[in-house]
Amino acid sequence: MSDGLKIATIGGGSSYTPELIEGFINRISTLPVSDIYLVDIEEGKEKLEIVAGLAERMVKRAGVNIKIHPTLNRREAIEGADFVTTQFRVGLLDARARDERIPLKYGCIGQETTGAGGFAKALRTIPVILDICRDIEELSPDAWLINFTNPSGIITETVLKHTKVKCIGLCNVPITMRYGIADVLGVEADRIYIEYVGLNHLVWGRRVYLDGKDITEMLIEGIANRDLSEFPYEKEFLKSLKMIPCPYHRYYYNTDEMLKEELEAAEGEGTRAEVVKKIEKDLFEKYKDTNLDVKPEELSKRGGAHYSEAACMLIESIYTDKKDIQPVNTLNNGAISDLPDNVVIETNCVIDSQGAHPINIGHIPQEIRGLIQVVKAYEELTIEAGVYGDYDRALQALAIHPLVKSAKKARMILEDILKENRDYLPQFVERLS
Amino acid sequence: MSDGLKIATIGGGSSYTPELIEGFINRISTLPVSDIYLVDIEEGKEKLEIVAGLAERMVKRAGVNIKIHPTLNRREAIEGADFVTTQFRVGLLDARARDERIPLKYGCIGQETTGAGGFAKALRTIPVILDICRDIEELSPDAWLINFTNPSGIITETVLKHTKVKCIGLCNVPITMRYGIADVLGVEADRIYIEYVGLNHLVWGRRVYLDGKDITEMLIEGIANRDLSEFPYEKEFLKSLKMIPCPYHRYYYNTDEMLKEELEAAEGEGTRAEVVKKIEKDLFEKYKDTNLDVKPEELSKRGGAHYSEAACMLIESIYTDKKDIQPVNTLNNGAISDLPDNVVIETNCVIDSQGAHPINIGHIPQEIRGLIQVVKAYEELTIEAGVYGDYDRALQALAIHPLVKSAKKARMILEDILKENRDYLPQFVERLS
Amino acid sequence: MSDGLKIATIGGGSSYTPELIEGFINRISTLPVSDIYLVDIEEGKEKLEIVAGLAERMVKRAGVNIKIHPTLNRREAIEGADFVTTQFRVGLLDARARDERIPLKYGCIGQETTGAGGFAKALRTIPVILDICRDIEELSPDAWLINFTNPSGIITETVLKHTKVKCIGLCNVPITMRYGIADVLGVEADRIYIEYVGLNHLVWGRRVYLDGKDITEMLIEGIANRDLSEFPYEKEFLKSLKMIPCPYHRYYYNTDEMLKEELEAAEGEGTRAEVVKKIEKDLFEKYKDTNLDVKPEELSKRGGAHYSEAACMLIESIYTDKKDIQPVNTLNNGAISDLPDNVVIETNCVIDSQGAHPINIGHIPQEIRGLIQVVKAYEELTIEAGVYGDYDRALQALAIHPLVKSAKKARMILEDILKENRDYLPQFVERLS
Amino acid sequence: MSDGLKIATIGGGSSYTPELIEGFINRISTLPVSDIYLVDIEEGKEKLEIVAGLAERMVKRAGVNIKIHPTLNRREAIEGADFVTTQFRVGLLDARARDERIPLKYGCIGQETTGAGGFAKALRTIPVILDICRDIEELSPDAWLINFTNPSGIITETVLKHTKVKCIGLCNVPITMRYGIADVLGVEADRIYIEYVGLNHLVWGRRVYLDGKDITEMLIEGIANRDLSEFPYEKEFLKSLKMIPCPYHRYYYNTDEMLKEELEAAEGEGTRAEVVKKIEKDLFEKYKDTNLDVKPEELSKRGGAHYSEAACMLIESIYTDKKDIQPVNTLNNGAISDLPDNVVIETNCVIDSQGAHPINIGHIPQEIRGLIQVVKAYEELTIEAGVYGDYDRALQALAIHPLVKSAKKARMILEDILKENRDYLPQFVERLS
Repeated sequence: MSDGLKIATIGGGSSYTPELIEGFINRISTLPVSDIYLVDIEEGKEKLEIVAGLAERMVKRAGVNIKIHPTLNRREAIEGADFVTTQFRVGLLDARARDERIPLKYGCIGQETTGAGGFAKALRTIPVILDICRDIEELSPDAWLINFTNPSGIITETVLKHTKVKCIGLCNVPITMRYGIADVLGVEADRIYIEYVGLNHLVWGRRVYLDGKDITEMLIEGIANRDLSEFPYEKEFLKSLKMIPCPYHRYYYNTDEMLKEELEAAEGEGTRAEVVKKIEKDLFEKYKDTNLDVKPEELSKRGGAHYSEAACMLIESIYTDKKDIQPVNTLNNGAISDLPDNVVIETNCVIDSQGAHPINIGHIPQEIRGLIQVVKAYEELTIEAGVYGDYDRALQALAIHPLVKSAKKARMILEDILKENRDYLPQFVERLS
Repeated sequence: MSDGLKIATIGGGSSYTPELIEGFINRISTLPVSDIYLVDIEEGKEKLEIVAGLAERMVKRAGVNIKIHPTLNRREAIEGADFVTTQFRVGLLDARARDERIPLKYGCIGQETTGAGGFAKALRTIPVILDICRDIEELSPDAWLINFTNPSGIITETVLKHTKVKCIGLCNVPITMRYGIADVLGVEADRIYIEYVGLNHLVWGRRVYLDGKDITEMLIEGIANRDLSEFPYEKEFLKSLKMIPCPYHRYYYNTDEMLKEELEAAEGEGTRAEVVKKIEKDLFEKYKDTNLDVKPEELSKRGGAHYSEAACMLIESIYTDKKDIQPVNTLNNGAISDLPDNVVIETNCVIDSQGAHPINIGHIPQEIRGLIQVVKAYEELTIEAGVYGDYDRALQALAIHPLVKSAKKARMILEDILKENRDYLPQFVERLS
Repeated sequence: MSDGLKIATIGGGSSYTPELIEGFINRISTLPVSDIYLVDIEEGKEKLEIVAGLAERMVKRAGVNIKIHPTLNRREAIEGADFVTTQFRVGLLDARARDERIPLKYGCIGQETTGAGGFAKALRTIPVILDICRDIEELSPDAWLINFTNPSGIITETVLKHTKVKCIGLCNVPITMRYGIADVLGVEADRIYIEYVGLNHLVWGRRVYLDGKDITEMLIEGIANRDLSEFPYEKEFLKSLKMIPCPYHRYYYNTDEMLKEELEAAEGEGTRAEVVKKIEKDLFEKYKDTNLDVKPEELSKRGGAHYSEAACMLIESIYTDKKDIQPVNTLNNGAISDLPDNVVIETNCVIDSQGAHPINIGHIPQEIRGLIQVVKAYEELTIEAGVYGDYDRALQALAIHPLVKSAKKARMILEDILKENRDYLPQFVERLS
Repeated sequence: MSDGLKIATIGGGSSYTPELIEGFINRISTLPVSDIYLVDIEEGKEKLEIVAGLAERMVKRAGVNIKIHPTLNRREAIEGADFVTTQFRVGLLDARARDERIPLKYGCIGQETTGAGGFAKALRTIPVILDICRDIEELSPDAWLINFTNPSGIITETVLKHTKVKCIGLCNVPITMRYGIADVLGVEADRIYIEYVGLNHLVWGRRVYLDGKDITEMLIEGIANRDLSEFPYEKEFLKSLKMIPCPYHRYYYNTDEMLKEELEAAEGEGTRAEVVKKIEKDLFEKYKDTNLDVKPEELSKRGGAHYSEAACMLIESIYTDKKDIQPVNTLNNGAISDLPDNVVIETNCVIDSQGAHPINIGHIPQEIRGLIQVVKAYEELTIEAGVYGDYDRALQALAIHPLVKSAKKARMILEDILKENRDYLPQFVERLS
């Protein structure tokens, strides 16, 4: 093994991998990565090989000295790794499709990361991430776990509460908001600075700055007067909010409209998972092409844009002790005074060799405080349910979630989730047997 | 004027008044009330006279030395009062009926105290209670204001945040829960002790004790296995909650069922306000009967049972420096660690000559924390909206309320509320003109 | 064994025991104590027998059905006990004398419970109380531990942090302040109510009420204008404090004067321990007298007056689920917003079958906040030092204590303490060997 | 007036000014300062002219386009200023000498910024800083106030609590600690990063990093094994502290030794103020030399090294929206969970166009928590005393300060302070007349 950095990417057969490889290639001068282990499971072997092939061609073309190691042996990959990144999906897209369809049956939002769908994904993912962390604790205790697996906030909080692994959660929503606003204004993204406050997939841009000047009001005025599809909110509403919501807020503020959209899609082209499945199939066809040695354009349609950028920037700042500011998911520890210390928030952090240090926030305005608090209570209950297989907490988690909000539906959805995911929920084995 | 206690009851023409009079009569040996001023407005003059007549007959029959003073002059009533009690209803039952019907138009719960209906009632009531408090500050600065006007928590918080008046908020829900549990168990109510935690009309019995023994689990087991109409929750749900919800929780946990019920009533017998209007008409017919000199049985159908008991117990404990424990609405001041200091909570307090001192609670479980927090954020926004006529906060208040939870509906409901209540919303005069 | 309550008193050979026995005798109608186990160690056997003899004569004279069981077998005493009370003194009065003399050597206050002396006592007591608690956890897990062993706050916090035992800490300082103020005013003590806030031996009467009326200012004015030896503070100081300090505050506010007094005593009649030793000797002579069958007058000189009253009131209110208000040492849990949740405070609590529930306090005034906080930090460090034998924390505990406040003296005092108490500090065995 | 930045320096006749001028000259390419107003009072006119002369020569020699404006007209200087810096000293060095000597009379530390001396300085400075802020509010409401006047934390907190002025407090202690550690290690200062936590002149280096690696333990081991005069602490003490104290901690941890030193100096060469007076005299002789056109070497002996660097770095980062990390005094707002929101702390902040944003800290270790809390309580009381002329709070402030800690001495020192500073304490006019 060379003496550069070792990266282990769990879920390495993912269609996202080429973006990540591209990111490492571009940063090779400051981030001396020498070995990338792409780990997957038996069922993903074919995809893993396709992706690894492309990765090797990309590396070769770039002329950089990075070795690609596709493997089904997770422990080998983790051993001595400097950074472990996660982008796996327990149960693959079929499970996601079920996550989307179960809540819809009961008239509730069915979404991959938010609401009852995200809840189901969390229950499936928690046992696996804990297992990975046991490996890290044993085989590379100093490694940083950069989690991208959704629901990213919940998974990161699970790791920080229940393991000793150093973990930072990532999401491409904040960076995408920044690019989106830069686009609207027609300026370079690095001139925009957003004060992010909230949770993963429930993050607001509290203030937005252009070259250090507060442009929040101007921006809202502008957005509110246009019919931008990315900001599907009424004028009065945005003006009264005085902040910039993230794309996932539509599920909360426009629940009825989103539900209608989802129901129509479910009966038409299919849920998002079903659509993505087709996109992925096409993508992998592309990836197979042995002439392809760059990230294909089509990947951007997949969603998850800027993921590689976020991940590589984070790893670079940790490695180089850079002390720049990035929005990540990390321990609250009092940064938001209105949330418990031991929960994970998504906010601007100073990133250095010691990890992510939130810039202090203090109290948050009532307009967003309650929503953040109720979703965080849901997340905490979900983590307890996922770690201990606790049916009571699982039921309460769903019952208080703003996108379920019915004791009876919560129970029915929960029972469907437990039944349809029985192969992935070892923690509920007693209840399910 | 005699040298006993002077009570001023704002909204004295209410059908509740006979219960209050009965309460004072029963406590005359420890609580030497000498003068009760029943205050009402011009429109309520007829009712006031009827009620005052009955009150006088009750006092006479009891042979106690209490003088009843019906008056339209609020300042005369307040001047030098020892206790001011409030039970007025701005806009009368017609306004309440509108509060119930507007949200229903948009598929949302329409309820007197909770959700968009309670919000409208708060906007109407806030200017009046502030006006009353200005009088108290001037004319009887040492008086205690015992608020029973709904939404009681919001009104009490308004007074404590925006005036110097000493105020405690009352509600008959906690005492009714206690009587209800005693009934279920077939024991005397004073053997039951409930640890109340929450907000007005959103209060849980965290633990329930019989003769000092924790019977919460047993009680839930019992309730969960019976189909008690007061506890319309599924077995699994109550067991997972591990606490006793209050009657108003049905609007939150069983929103769909309650909405269906309300819509059916609205199309059938009428909303609750419309039903109560008929009950009240009958009641006042009774009250007119000059032979009647006790509280008539029919009052119990009106709702608000045990109100008199709660109010008189509270006044007695303040007057006698009793240091007993009563559930009231008072300043949080850190009692619940998960809520701001300056908000009002409903919980057990030691009552003495200095007022209400909450028994410390600390952190509350995740199962109820998020719901309490989001409703409290709504309440704080509502108070700001009500005091300052702030449209933005009004819109946000509705948009985050779990019973509205849609930015667009929030705006439509708000516009209807402002329009239909324009005579009662001086604080919004600019927007409405 | 009869079916009344079983009490186990650790340190039963103490001279205080007759007062405790008297308390149980007086309360027999509401508190049906049937068996009192007086536990002591081999070295205290003779005293134990003397005290047990007197206790038996007292019980007999009173004609109550309480059985006295003197024993050296602690486990027998604890097994199945309803209440365990502690009044033991590790190392006896000789150790206390050393606690007093070591700090004096370095020009620091030498006091049994406060400062470096109290620190030494804590180190000796912690291993023993933990041992007792292991027995309780095993043999009477539902028993209440009523701790009177000093430093009572530190010992109670140790139990609540490091064991599962239900524990309330007692001190006679608060009740003595109440009696003292009643004396000054010439009224019955039960007409006085004090809002206690603080820590054990660092408690202030924030407000004082007579029959529910706030008399704090009047009282301070009165005290400040007299030269009461119990209130040895300057007029300006008390007026600026606006609260009533406890007797132990002299060590903090009048350090120089107290040090002078202690140094003079140490060279003259001896330290307090040395004086008490003589008093105790005389007391036990009295106790031996087989004609004596009541608590002798002379006990009041011993200090610790009202201890029995405090202990018996507390046990009675727990047993009878009384819900009255008593000042005790219990978990903060947010009652004082300016201290951590998991520390012990001394304040008014509602006492019932579930234990002690602090009346909420919120933030405390700056005048006393800092002092409470620094002493609490000292206490937390002392507990960690005492439980884990942690030299670093021990040194820091002393270095930040306001009565030591010198890094160098702290080290010298600590070394003397460790050396002179080596037989009682098993947790420091490694360092001491 | 040119279109560059306008700086107003209050106390412009200070001997520090040449360092500040040098700083602006060195940064002219990124920080386009065009006008520096040096403001002083009538008594300081001569010094002001000397300093302004030197400043003009420095600017000329550097060939930069900065105009120096010496003036006695503060309002002219403040009007339209971009940055106002303060380095004035109310009562000049004579007042400082009195601050040092009064406490010594009573056996207490007499020091310019800490203890009773710093308290007196605060009382004198508060009315003046409030006056300056009224001017800023009126004449340059968008200006940043960069406060260097001591006690810097107290003065900054006064401004943030009692005015609308945007203010950041500076001190050269943190930067000096960084240089000191770099010196000890023989590395460049910019490779050292210190996690500062605490208050002004009571700040600890919680962790120290070299190139991103935690070297705290190694550093302590190194320091503890050497007899460095800058780290005058015993080996055991530093090891048990596990942090790096600042130079002012000697007053707290080594009170006796420092007191002895001060008393000897007071009887010998004079107190620090008296020594500095001589140094200043010599300095001003140098400054007068019309051939001098650079900052003279001798200034470094004066104390306050790196002040210019700290001030200019701060101004530059605000102006350029730099988002780098600097240790400054700013609002806590929850950054340290163990202190009130509205107090000022000294810690690492991200500096940008919006000011200083603390990196979140959370709870602080018990070893330093209590000391910080008690000194902060003292500071809050001092501010109230200084703003309102409140004798009671003044007395309490001194009585709880760890360097006074005696109710009687507190009163005597306070009376001396009030009497000897009567010309500078308009807020106490009633008491003093």
